Amino acid sequence: MNTLLQQIQFIKEIDKLKYIQRKTKLFNSDKHENDAEHSWHLAMMALILVEHSNEEINLFKVLKMVLIHDIVEIDSGDIFIFDTTKNHNNTEEELKAAKRIFGMLPEIQAKEFIDIWLEFERGETNEAKFAKAMDRFEPILQNVSNKGGTWKEYNVAKEKVIEKTKPVILGSKAIWDYSLEEIEMSFEKI
Amino acid sequence: MNTLLQQIQFIKEIDKLKYIQRKTKLFNSDKHENDAEHSWHLAMMALILVEHSNEEINLFKVLKMVLIHDIVEIDSGDIFIFDTTKNHNNTEEELKAAKRIFGMLPEIQAKEFIDIWLEFERGETNEAKFAKAMDRFEPILQNVSNKGGTWKEYNVAKEKVIEKTKPVILGSKAIWDYSLEEIEMSFEKI
Repeated sequence: MNTLLQQIQFIKEIDKLKYIQRKTKLFNSDKHENDAEHSWHLAMMALILVEHSNEEINLFKVLKMVLIHDIVEIDSGDIFIFDTTKNHNNTEEELKAAKRIFGMLPEIQAKEFIDIWLEFERGETNEAKFAKAMDRFEPILQNVSNKGGTWKEYNVAKEKVIEKTKPVILGSKAIWDYSLEEIEMSFEKI
Repeated sequence: MNTLLQQIQFIKEIDKLKYIQRKTKLFNSDKHENDAEHSWHLAMMALILVEHSNEEINLFKVLKMVLIHDIVEIDSGDIFIFDTTKNHNNTEEELKAAKRIFGMLPEIQAKEFIDIWLEFERGETNEAKFAKAMDRFEPILQNVSNKGGTWKEYNVAKEKVIEKTKPVILGSKAIWDYSLEEIEMSFEKI
């Protein structure tokens, strides 16, 4: 198949991300967010908040990471961060999904995207740490705006919320300081 | 107000993009697309299709353009490309929207984003031409997948569709050649 046709097949396939609902809801809203909306919002947040990164980062790479980070959920579905019945570190199913979906692209691109997705998942580089900070920070803002949101809905203790969201600090100390204050204030009102 | 708080206000404000419905629908679907989903999809398309650009382009800048290009619609609403009662070149209302919304950001960022949005709107640089090509190409793919989609729904003649989508050629001759074939084939079946 020629390159363009192969790429167009991929572009059609990823439309499915718009149907993957997250547990969290939009700001001040009862409407669930979907993965495409979420990915767009993270890209905007990375663009806007880059100056608060602990380290100098390649913002272009961070954008790629957040734009593609949830595409695997087309096959594996959204996993709720506070769902204790599922192992969030088991990426076997997600790796299979990454290989199938990114594998629709011409070989060099497929490799590039799988590598970027793996770099995000591993969370070891400065870019991955900042991208993951954005991924944690958005639902904090949303839950605070929704008077506790999923924390309240699923009866998650403050300590658990802090434990799960604390990796924000690896990307940005400033954003974590703000987040912690917001979480504390939000739980006072729940 | 401190910089981070100002930026967070902006991040909350742009959540509204998720409520702005476009006329076009998702692939093989009856569900309308919203502006946030659309912006995410254009960013992915730019990432994937960059090799088909007529000219060497700065992909990082194109990503910024497509991510922010519709934010003004939070104030001015989505304008349907085939709506002949509205002037699509009148950006006065959109400029006011850009100044209000991007103006929520710290001054240097506000200026940067207004400038990028204006560059996109003017469509003169190679980056703007390619970004606009993506913006035209996505609804072509969607309408073809939906057996004519908005072209059929609003009774738009093939010649009009070609006239309105032809600017794709300014960004990518290869993508325009493909688009034209798809439009022709789609109209044969309508």
